[in-house]
Amino acid sequence: MDFTSEQRFDDSVLEREFTLGEIPGILWTPASASASAPAPLILLGHPGGLPKMYPRLVARARHSAAEGYAAATIELPGSGDRPRLAAVDEARADLRRALAAGEPVDDEIVDRLILPLVDKAVPEWRATLDAVGSLPEIGGPVGFAGGVIAIGIRLALVEPRIAAAVLFAGSFVPRTMVEEARKVTIPLLVLLQWDDEGNDRQLALDLFDAFGSKEKTLHANMGGHTGVPQFEGDAGNRFFARHLK
Amino acid sequence: MDFTSEQRFDDSVLEREFTLGEIPGILWTPASASASAPAPLILLGHPGGLPKMYPRLVARARHSAAEGYAAATIELPGSGDRPRLAAVDEARADLRRALAAGEPVDDEIVDRLILPLVDKAVPEWRATLDAVGSLPEIGGPVGFAGGVIAIGIRLALVEPRIAAAVLFAGSFVPRTMVEEARKVTIPLLVLLQWDDEGNDRQLALDLFDAFGSKEKTLHANMGGHTGVPQFEGDAGNRFFARHLK
Repeated sequence: MDFTSEQRFDDSVLEREFTLGEIPGILWTPASASASAPAPLILLGHPGGLPKMYPRLVARARHSAAEGYAAATIELPGSGDRPRLAAVDEARADLRRALAAGEPVDDEIVDRLILPLVDKAVPEWRATLDAVGSLPEIGGPVGFAGGVIAIGIRLALVEPRIAAAVLFAGSFVPRTMVEEARKVTIPLLVLLQWDDEGNDRQLALDLFDAFGSKEKTLHANMGGHTGVPQFEGDAGNRFFARHLK
Repeated sequence: MDFTSEQRFDDSVLEREFTLGEIPGILWTPASASASAPAPLILLGHPGGLPKMYPRLVARARHSAAEGYAAATIELPGSGDRPRLAAVDEARADLRRALAAGEPVDDEIVDRLILPLVDKAVPEWRATLDAVGSLPEIGGPVGFAGGVIAIGIRLALVEPRIAAAVLFAGSFVPRTMVEEARKVTIPLLVLLQWDDEGNDRQLALDLFDAFGSKEKTLHANMGGHTGVPQFEGDAGNRFFARHLK
């Protein structure tokens, strides 16, 4: 992991951009984090396109840092400044065509779009965890917060360092991954935008039902995909305070 | 309103039992409440039977008092030490028979059980609000928290002093009251126990969908009817902090 830039916000948060091999990423650490008082880490998931997502990610990271958490994110495979993935781009175009035409979205389109992303992204998130987790100022159990929800499901299933997750029910989920969701056992907070134009409410409720976790909470709010209310950031912090500390 | 007993908890909360005509009730006020700094009031709804419900109600009231809220509750018509309501008792027996037999519950049973309760209880809650609200140490907008959800719906609709409500999706709701729910516009937090044995999950989700409020949030948690997690008490306080202060 190579740090490529750094800046401070209000003397309270240190932001460092990094590259991990070819993957660009960002790490935010609260000023209070040190080798003797390491900060628990939250991985910030997102739908891809770091430059475009940056304003929302930095707001979430600073909100977490105020409660003593470090936060890290990486670019998704095929997004932002990373090399395109032709097959995924093709599936995304097929999905948009279907949505624009008001047609139902075939499972095979969802599979072609999401499964390669999950297969590529999850090992990258784990490598990020290896690298960031080895810094002396980072320590303790790890949380995942955000989307793509399918990536969060797989990470929750295969990565034992992840102790709790806040998942954004806002993306298409391959059928096979609903089966993976049944095997997830870590505490979950699932955020659902009730009127999300790009998301099937019933499928999201079915997925919430499927999770195997004994402690799982659904928070449904009004509004579209990007309208998650500010107060859910506080709710996420309190959820992690119960499970990461 | 006549106060019939009083006790203090930890010098921080004053509990006073009262009667309002024939109706027994309890008022909890934080020690900080005074004529110059009146406490906002939360009405604590419950399914009936004050003596049985007391341990849970006092826990909720003390939790609210710690955040500066007063809380008040009254006995439901036909419950606890109040005179029975023969028609309601009969409907309740019919409901229990249907549930025990694993039969679907007829709408007419729900109507016979809930509608007279709502019609009787809502004016009593409003009279309580008149009486408690006239105390110098009580002031500001009012919240309602709890069940019977049908009572909460009607109160939210007809009582303009109620500015926000936390509703427990845990009871049967007459069809006509779903139409009343569409006209409710105050901010709502609806708590749903995902595996509530006595409650139809889909009907609860449909009711949440029906509410006309622009700000409404659903919190679904695992477990049965009485298993609402402790942390939802904090969530309720934060919800009221946004809307009653």
